[in-house]
Amino acid sequence: MSPCAATLDAVFYPRSIAVVGASADPTKAGAKWVQGLLAAGYSGPIYPVSRHGGTIGGLNIARSLAEIDDDIDYVIASVPLHSVLQLIDECISKRARVVQFFTAGFSETGKPEGADLETEMLRRARSAGLRIIGPNCIGSYCPEAHIPLGPAATGKIGIPGPIGFISQSGGIAAKLVEYGLARDIRFSKGVSVGNSLDLDASDFLDYLGQDSKTGAIGMYLEGTRDGRRLFDSLKRVAARKPVVLWKGGRTPAGANAAHSHTGSLAASPAIWSAMMRQAETMEAHSLEELCDCLLLLQNLGRTRARNVAVVGGLADGGGGISVSGSDACADNGLLLPELEPATRYRLLELVGEVGSILRNPVDVSPAQFRGLETICAAIQTVAEDRGIELLMVQMDMDIMASFLSADEGMEIARFLARLSGTSDKAIVVVLPSGSAETERQAAASTLSSAGVPVYPTIARAARALSIVSGRAALPA
Amino acid sequence: MSPCAATLDAVFYPRSIAVVGASADPTKAGAKWVQGLLAAGYSGPIYPVSRHGGTIGGLNIARSLAEIDDDIDYVIASVPLHSVLQLIDECISKRARVVQFFTAGFSETGKPEGADLETEMLRRARSAGLRIIGPNCIGSYCPEAHIPLGPAATGKIGIPGPIGFISQSGGIAAKLVEYGLARDIRFSKGVSVGNSLDLDASDFLDYLGQDSKTGAIGMYLEGTRDGRRLFDSLKRVAARKPVVLWKGGRTPAGANAAHSHTGSLAASPAIWSAMMRQAETMEAHSLEELCDCLLLLQNLGRTRARNVAVVGGLADGGGGISVSGSDACADNGLLLPELEPATRYRLLELVGEVGSILRNPVDVSPAQFRGLETICAAIQTVAEDRGIELLMVQMDMDIMASFLSADEGMEIARFLARLSGTSDKAIVVVLPSGSAETERQAAASTLSSAGVPVYPTIARAARALSIVSGRAALPA
Repeated sequence: MSPCAATLDAVFYPRSIAVVGASADPTKAGAKWVQGLLAAGYSGPIYPVSRHGGTIGGLNIARSLAEIDDDIDYVIASVPLHSVLQLIDECISKRARVVQFFTAGFSETGKPEGADLETEMLRRARSAGLRIIGPNCIGSYCPEAHIPLGPAATGKIGIPGPIGFISQSGGIAAKLVEYGLARDIRFSKGVSVGNSLDLDASDFLDYLGQDSKTGAIGMYLEGTRDGRRLFDSLKRVAARKPVVLWKGGRTPAGANAAHSHTGSLAASPAIWSAMMRQAETMEAHSLEELCDCLLLLQNLGRTRARNVAVVGGLADGGGGISVSGSDACADNGLLLPELEPATRYRLLELVGEVGSILRNPVDVSPAQFRGLETICAAIQTVAEDRGIELLMVQMDMDIMASFLSADEGMEIARFLARLSGTSDKAIVVVLPSGSAETERQAAASTLSSAGVPVYPTIARAARALSIVSGRAALPA
Repeated sequence: MSPCAATLDAVFYPRSIAVVGASADPTKAGAKWVQGLLAAGYSGPIYPVSRHGGTIGGLNIARSLAEIDDDIDYVIASVPLHSVLQLIDECISKRARVVQFFTAGFSETGKPEGADLETEMLRRARSAGLRIIGPNCIGSYCPEAHIPLGPAATGKIGIPGPIGFISQSGGIAAKLVEYGLARDIRFSKGVSVGNSLDLDASDFLDYLGQDSKTGAIGMYLEGTRDGRRLFDSLKRVAARKPVVLWKGGRTPAGANAAHSHTGSLAASPAIWSAMMRQAETMEAHSLEELCDCLLLLQNLGRTRARNVAVVGGLADGGGGISVSGSDACADNGLLLPELEPATRYRLLELVGEVGSILRNPVDVSPAQFRGLETICAAIQTVAEDRGIELLMVQMDMDIMASFLSADEGMEIARFLARLSGTSDKAIVVVLPSGSAETERQAAASTLSSAGVPVYPTIARAARALSIVSGRAALPA
């Protein structure tokens, strides 16, 4: 039974939220849900509920849902397993729209009691029009509505942006948001669906497909209760906006763990891959790949750029990057076209022949000895080559720190940030980790703020380009 | 002509060093070589040489090698191409042992003049017993002797340790050292060999094979002038200590770049892989893999551990880690054995069933609500399971920061550091990046100092285990 949009609006933009199983003890999960909403600045009424009463975060704890003198859109349930059915009944009496169960211990335990309890929950909820998220999940996340993800007292939400996500795993959802905060991936909304007893990934996929705030969608799934429905949703939504799906539990060991985690049953990875191909859904194979693709989609859209120029050795060390970067690009189906004669001639003038590589990838190592302007001019020259669609620049902040001042390194980052605004070529920057982490993070921040996607290695950037363009090879 | 050990001792432990092409202008490469040696605390005499004279770093610049009233072990040459033969002659007159050419523009340009010049250099040097490193390289690195790598004014050298390396590329060598500084990989000595005109990778491999300070060897090669010789050296040395080799230029695009970089000629990647297998050399496919393997070898030796327990969800988010970690382990041939009944019973007592996964991988998420001691006790319980050889613990410092205090997160890192000293199981920690970089780096530092290898993802750790144990599948 597909939910109407208004029902899912209540998940992401609830007028009011009740947290059942709240606690006056701030170390308990129920308390952290309340604290998180307060810290994130959720502006609607928050109603903590616990039969023990008390206060949390300055709010009085109601002893039951019935005691609350207001309508409730969204109920967060952090209650013991034995209270679950009673809470369903109370939600129905209160005419709450959606209840999300943090509570776990259901079908994912593999015990028949867990599955039976789920069946009864669903029966009661469906007969009364109450919708359920989970159980065994952390539910809704919506930076725009100041709703943080999960029971995290810090209430970190990040800046709203175009990326929506659906994750069967709360942990993967939380890590995706953490990566987002660190890498400037900005989210419209997301949801962790856990056991997907009632509302499932397909419901949310359809919703995000229609959502004007969501430009691209990331998914982490371990299984589905309705493969046909998922396929139809993927096909419909992916025709309209990019969808990247990471299927966890590809291997027998992973599938076993998935069964214990979200009660998911195994289907062969080949079936999943075939489904994704047919539904024109991009396939990621790890959290890193998923994030790398979402970052690319956020900043460059569904790019099909294949003709790439790589520039390295901004201070030194460009030779090895030329070679290993070529391998990484070739592994991922990217082409490194020969540069135009005019480009090579200009590079020769700027950089000189000795110690440089004026083919593509371009190693501009000797430019350091002629100063910052030469390095920037060499990069700009390559960006202007008419044979390339995308410029990838590797900046080793630690190696640069040996040859240039800290400010010169940052000046190159600022130059690239400006270039991305003026050039007709897409720009991707590779900032490998190393011993100059402070400088690396400062450069990453400058570039990210300008909408330049930043990757830790050429291989990671090339892989994301390969997946997003639809040229990705089968999984490794 | 194989060098005697005393010759290569002069490369890593020179009694005196001359820098020819030094400059009074501190922005020039020749000046940076001198500054680097001074900053690193090299204790022997340093003789800057330039026909322009002057001073650099408080040292008088001699106008020629002949002017120096001392024996010279090691000459660093940062001179123009047209001065190269004259410098060879001067080195011979001075009876210098080894000259290393930073100078580039030889066979790697693809022009016959470059190759002809190399031939003449080699002829003159060989006739007089002078040995050459490079040209087109950054030469020797030896933290123990306070010799930094390359013309880097900062003179960073790191702490001496058991890892030796040989890199055809100066940039890759420099990046390897930067990774080392950041990840607590400690080096005995290393060398960048560039075009390998005279002394080549095999010479240094034989030397490091005999070197008592070197316990494991990493190599980055783009090609070789004598494949048979390299094969014999690899076979001989790898029988004695672990050797990890990354061959750059595996793809046609990479091989083209390699030819421009170090003048290396292509051989098929299949031939290289076959050679490595026959010589029992571990094969890495990227800088990250090379470093990941060297870190493992440094801290755990040539481990063959295959039965692994993974623990995640120290605060939350362990479910997705259980699933995706299982996939990553399975992809790399690791086994996740079922835990002993006693282990599972104890975990059930400690963590409880709800919201946890008490199979392997173990998700101890609910333990957070019982406090730090419960989390540590759960980890220790798994470490004591007799069916496992290696414990891999994932710590998401950002997710932990939402549930535990910063100090509790560090307390877990300290607990793991202690456990690695008392447990009979090898311990590997996975510290993914995210939004809590300061905390992540502090934890990484505590663990690294205790000899615990730290990886950014389970997949990276599993891959390193797979390569080091010799079970690695063919390249992706």
